[in-house]
Amino acid sequence: MAIPKLIDVEISSDRKSITLAWNNNESARFHAIWLRDNCLDANTRDPQSHQRLLTIQDIPENISMAQAGICESRNSLEFTFTPNDYSSEFPSSWLYQYRYSANKLPENGFVAAGIELWNEDLANNLPRASWKALLDDDNALAQWLRNVRRYGFALIYDLPVTDNTVSRVVERFGFVRTTNYGRYFDVRAEVNASNLAYTSLGLQVHTDNPYRDPVPGLQLLHCLQSDADGGESTLVDGFKAALVLREENRVAFDLLSSHSVRFEFCDEGKANLSAKAPLITLSPEGEILEVRFNNRSTAPFNLPFDVMEDYYAAYRAFAEILERPEMEVSFHMKAGELFIVDNRRVMHGRKGYSGAGSRHLQGCYADRDGLYSKLAVLSQNNLT
Amino acid sequence: MAIPKLIDVEISSDRKSITLAWNNNESARFHAIWLRDNCLDANTRDPQSHQRLLTIQDIPENISMAQAGICESRNSLEFTFTPNDYSSEFPSSWLYQYRYSANKLPENGFVAAGIELWNEDLANNLPRASWKALLDDDNALAQWLRNVRRYGFALIYDLPVTDNTVSRVVERFGFVRTTNYGRYFDVRAEVNASNLAYTSLGLQVHTDNPYRDPVPGLQLLHCLQSDADGGESTLVDGFKAALVLREENRVAFDLLSSHSVRFEFCDEGKANLSAKAPLITLSPEGEILEVRFNNRSTAPFNLPFDVMEDYYAAYRAFAEILERPEMEVSFHMKAGELFIVDNRRVMHGRKGYSGAGSRHLQGCYADRDGLYSKLAVLSQNNLT
Repeated sequence: MAIPKLIDVEISSDRKSITLAWNNNESARFHAIWLRDNCLDANTRDPQSHQRLLTIQDIPENISMAQAGICESRNSLEFTFTPNDYSSEFPSSWLYQYRYSANKLPENGFVAAGIELWNEDLANNLPRASWKALLDDDNALAQWLRNVRRYGFALIYDLPVTDNTVSRVVERFGFVRTTNYGRYFDVRAEVNASNLAYTSLGLQVHTDNPYRDPVPGLQLLHCLQSDADGGESTLVDGFKAALVLREENRVAFDLLSSHSVRFEFCDEGKANLSAKAPLITLSPEGEILEVRFNNRSTAPFNLPFDVMEDYYAAYRAFAEILERPEMEVSFHMKAGELFIVDNRRVMHGRKGYSGAGSRHLQGCYADRDGLYSKLAVLSQNNLT
Repeated sequence: MAIPKLIDVEISSDRKSITLAWNNNESARFHAIWLRDNCLDANTRDPQSHQRLLTIQDIPENISMAQAGICESRNSLEFTFTPNDYSSEFPSSWLYQYRYSANKLPENGFVAAGIELWNEDLANNLPRASWKALLDDDNALAQWLRNVRRYGFALIYDLPVTDNTVSRVVERFGFVRTTNYGRYFDVRAEVNASNLAYTSLGLQVHTDNPYRDPVPGLQLLHCLQSDADGGESTLVDGFKAALVLREENRVAFDLLSSHSVRFEFCDEGKANLSAKAPLITLSPEGEILEVRFNNRSTAPFNLPFDVMEDYYAAYRAFAEILERPEMEVSFHMKAGELFIVDNRRVMHGRKGYSGAGSRHLQGCYADRDGLYSKLAVLSQNNLT
C-alpha cells in the first residue's frame, strides 16, 4: 500500500485536538492527550522494548496543542504541546494506520477480522497439511496457522503414529497447557471411565472443558489407531451457529448471551472444577468472543423462574441448529491424522463406535496466544 | 446444616412446574423441563463420571408433570413426567441446594462469593505461610489457597533460594503455564532488556501480560537475591479499586467497562502478542470478572472521537485511585520469599532500585482452575 501524503493540519479552536488531511481524500482527528500518550520518541517509549515509559499521570490534565506542522521531506507531523513545551513527531504512515476511524466496528453480532464462517460446504476443501511440510517449510506452517485462525480448525496428515506426538505438534507453534488430564491424554474406551469421552458412546458436538476458566483455547486430537466401526469426528462452527440463531431467533440469541450458566466436572479426590459463563459471550461492543456448549457438564441452570422456560427454549433452538446436517463437516480419522480446533469457537463431536476393533486418540490442550504470536512473527518475515 | 424436610408439593395448573415447601418455611418452584434435564438417575447421568447422558433434544418439548409426591421415609420427591411416563426421584437436600432462588445475584458491580476486598489495612495481616507448612500439612495448604482466592494474593517464606523453585511451588497446587517467557523467567536488570521488567526502573502497578488471551490467571515471583536499595513490591486490589471508581465516578466506571482496548507486546522475531479487552470486564449480570491495567503495553486507544476525551479522563481517574497510598500494601521481598497474585484481580508493581547491589527474582505463570480445583478437593476431604 502506498503511504498517503500528509497535506494539511489544523488545530481546533480549543486546541485540544487536530484535524489531519492526506492526499487520498481521507482526514482524521486526533486529541492532544492521545498524541502525547502515544509518542514514539525515546522519552516516551523504551527504544529497546518499545514499551511505554509514561503513565497517564505523567500527562498534564490540561494538555493542548501549542503548534503543529507538516514536515514534507519526512512526510511526518511535528508538534509541540503545552504546558511544558514538549515536542515530538509522528510519521504520516503511523498516524494513518492508527487514526480512530480506521477500524470502525460492525454492528452487534460480528466476528473478528480474519475469521471466515463456514458450513458443510467446507467439507470439499478441508484445511490440511502434511506434517513434513509443517516441519520443513515456514510458509506452509504460516498458511496452516492462518487457516486455524480463519476456520477455527485444521488437519494434519502423515504424522508418526507414536506416543505423545500430539505435544510435539503443539511445540511447533506454541505451548502445551497442562491440566488435570495431564500434558496429553488418551481417548479410548475404558472401564469405569472418569469422563464419557473415555467410552465408546457418541458425543454431541461440544466445546471441551467449559468447566475450566480459562477454557483451553485450542484442542488437538491425534489418531493412533482406528479400526472400529463408526467413531467419525464431526465439527461445527459455533460462531456460524450463533449467528444463524441470531438471525432466526433474536430473543433466543439475546437470552443465551445475557445469562451466565455454570459447568462442572468432578473426578473424585482428584479434580473438582467449576466455571460460569454465557453460552455465547459477547464483547461490550457486541463481538462474538466465545461459545461454550457441553451437554455432559452443564450444571443445573440457576436463573429466575420467569426466565427458565424461555431460556430452555433458546438452549434447544441453539442445540437444534448445531445438529443440522448442513452445519457440520465430518471425517473418519485415520491413524497418523490429527485435527486442531479453536475450542472457544468450533465444536467437535463423535459418532458412537462399536466394541469390535479399536479406536485410540491422544489429545492435548494449548492456548491461542502462542499460535497467533507464531503466525504474526512468520507473517512479519514476509512469509505468506 | 440440618436438611429441611419436604412437606408439600403442588403441580401448577398448566402442569409445567411444581411448587415445593419445606418445614423451614421456605418454598421454591421448579419447571418440569429443568427437573428432567437434571435427573440424577442412571439413565440421565453416567454413574461413574456423573456426566449427563441426555441432550436437550432428548427431552420432549411439551414435557409436563403427570404426578408428583413426597416420600417421607427418604425425604425425597418422586414424580412422573408426561409424555413417555418417565419417573425419577430427587433427595430433598439436592432440590433445596439447587432451588432457583438460592443464589440470587446482587446488583450490578458485585464480586463473587468468597472474595474479600482489601486496602492498606491488610498490611498488618498479610496472608502468608512457610514453605514447610505448605509441603507437610494439607490443612495449611488449603488455608493458603483459600487466602489466594479471598485476597487475590498470598506470600510464602522460608523457600529454598534455588533455581526454578518457583515452578515447584506451582506444582504443589496446579500447573505451570509456559509462555514465550519460558516455563519460568528471571527478573533482574539486563542490558538491552526486551521488557522494562528486566531493568531497574520502577513499574507502576499493573496486571501482567494483558496482551495475551487468555491472560495468565496467576503470577508468582520468587526472590533469590535482594540487596539493592529500593525495589519494594506493591500490591493493589484491582476489584476494590474498580468499586471505588464506581462509587466516586459512575460515568468513568461505565466507560472503562463498556469499551475494549488493545494491548500489545513485540519481542522482535520471537513473539508478537496482541489482545483486546475492557480495563474492567463485567459478566452480563454485572459481576466484576477481571481488570487489566498496564501502562507499558497499552496500544493506542481506538475509540470514537467523541468518546476519547471522556475515556482518558476515566482512565486517569482509575489510575489515580490505584496510586492512592491507602489502596496499597507494600513489602520488601527477601531472598527465600515469594508472592502469588491473582493476575486478573490484583495489580503488582515495584519501586525503582539502585544499581549498587543486586535484585534477582524468578517468575512463573499458572492458571486459577488448578488452584481452585485443588482447594475444592482438599475442602471435600473436610480440611479447613
